[in-house]
Amino acid sequence: MDYHNKDQGPLENLIKMLGNMPGLGNRSARRIALYLLQKRETAMIPLAYALQDAAEKIQNCDRCGNLDLNNPCKICCDTKREGGKICVVSHVSDLWAIERTGAFRGRYFVLGGLLSALDGIGPEDLHIDKLADQIRENSYEEVILALSATVDGQSTAHYIADRLHGLNISITRLAHGVPVGGELDYLDEGTITTALKSRSAA
Amino acid sequence: MDYHNKDQGPLENLIKMLGNMPGLGNRSARRIALYLLQKRETAMIPLAYALQDAAEKIQNCDRCGNLDLNNPCKICCDTKREGGKICVVSHVSDLWAIERTGAFRGRYFVLGGLLSALDGIGPEDLHIDKLADQIRENSYEEVILALSATVDGQSTAHYIADRLHGLNISITRLAHGVPVGGELDYLDEGTITTALKSRSAA
Repeated sequence: MDYHNKDQGPLENLIKMLGNMPGLGNRSARRIALYLLQKRETAMIPLAYALQDAAEKIQNCDRCGNLDLNNPCKICCDTKREGGKICVVSHVSDLWAIERTGAFRGRYFVLGGLLSALDGIGPEDLHIDKLADQIRENSYEEVILALSATVDGQSTAHYIADRLHGLNISITRLAHGVPVGGELDYLDEGTITTALKSRSAA
Repeated sequence: MDYHNKDQGPLENLIKMLGNMPGLGNRSARRIALYLLQKRETAMIPLAYALQDAAEKIQNCDRCGNLDLNNPCKICCDTKREGGKICVVSHVSDLWAIERTGAFRGRYFVLGGLLSALDGIGPEDLHIDKLADQIRENSYEEVILALSATVDGQSTAHYIADRLHGLNISITRLAHGVPVGGELDYLDEGTITTALKSRSAA
């Protein structure tokens, strides 16, 4: 008779749910559950309310797919941002990552994933039609395909570039090269080859 | 103007709270928040309820300090367990770890921490008086000090052994030695020395 598996009590249930979060396993979930039970009033109950609050109030922007309190989101509503550039990302986390740099002041579009032959994700599973419609209806000058430098990312970029062919818009993608702070010694051959080919005047 | 710091909205609040959990940082908290927002009905709302449910129903056992639906806990109430042995651990997680082995069928006592000169944790911060009272009032034959093999763990074990001096009870501690599956090559000198000294007939 194992003490912790004999019934699915509230504690076992909580640990199982926490263990389903990305990056967490059974052991880290147990640790978090114990931490929370020691701080019920200051951490556990507030976290429960924060989850409910966010689940109720945070919406997907119908325009770009960002998560925000408002729909359309703050970025789509911000008239001070450059209206001519749209940056296509696969996930909201990528949008946030670019936003944290402060280096881009245009609009975004979240695809909701990447094409993947292995995972059976086709164009109809992503918001590619919606992206094409938005680009057709708006006067964008440039679409930046900020997708991962993986096989799936690059084939998605190819597919989108094909779909947008014929529209009067410049299609760009992120530069490949040596990461800032990266040591050559530890880089793969593909990256070094690309960085050499794309070299610029020092 | 940073998009994600300008006000403490529900999403920022949720990410901050998740980032305060042990083992989680800002990046993993963001990842979990995004995962939850994509699965609001199947993961986010249920997790909020699971947290509230556990916070309401899980109690600390007044007798041993274990976390359980009942008070006294299942282990303290289980008449089939050996009544003569009490195993002293620092945290509930250690109790669970021993319980998972199935190798111990006696009672437990959770100290609530370890003595620590560095962190300023003295005997009055732990349940050492309560442990001494319980041992005095009950007919235990053996108290097993299942504390970490660290300086704090061992000084706590020494302190408790001193406190229980004069009571008619045998005081034991966990064996030190080579971990099962461990390679000698990777072990520290202290462990190998201890394992040599405590060698047994093969």
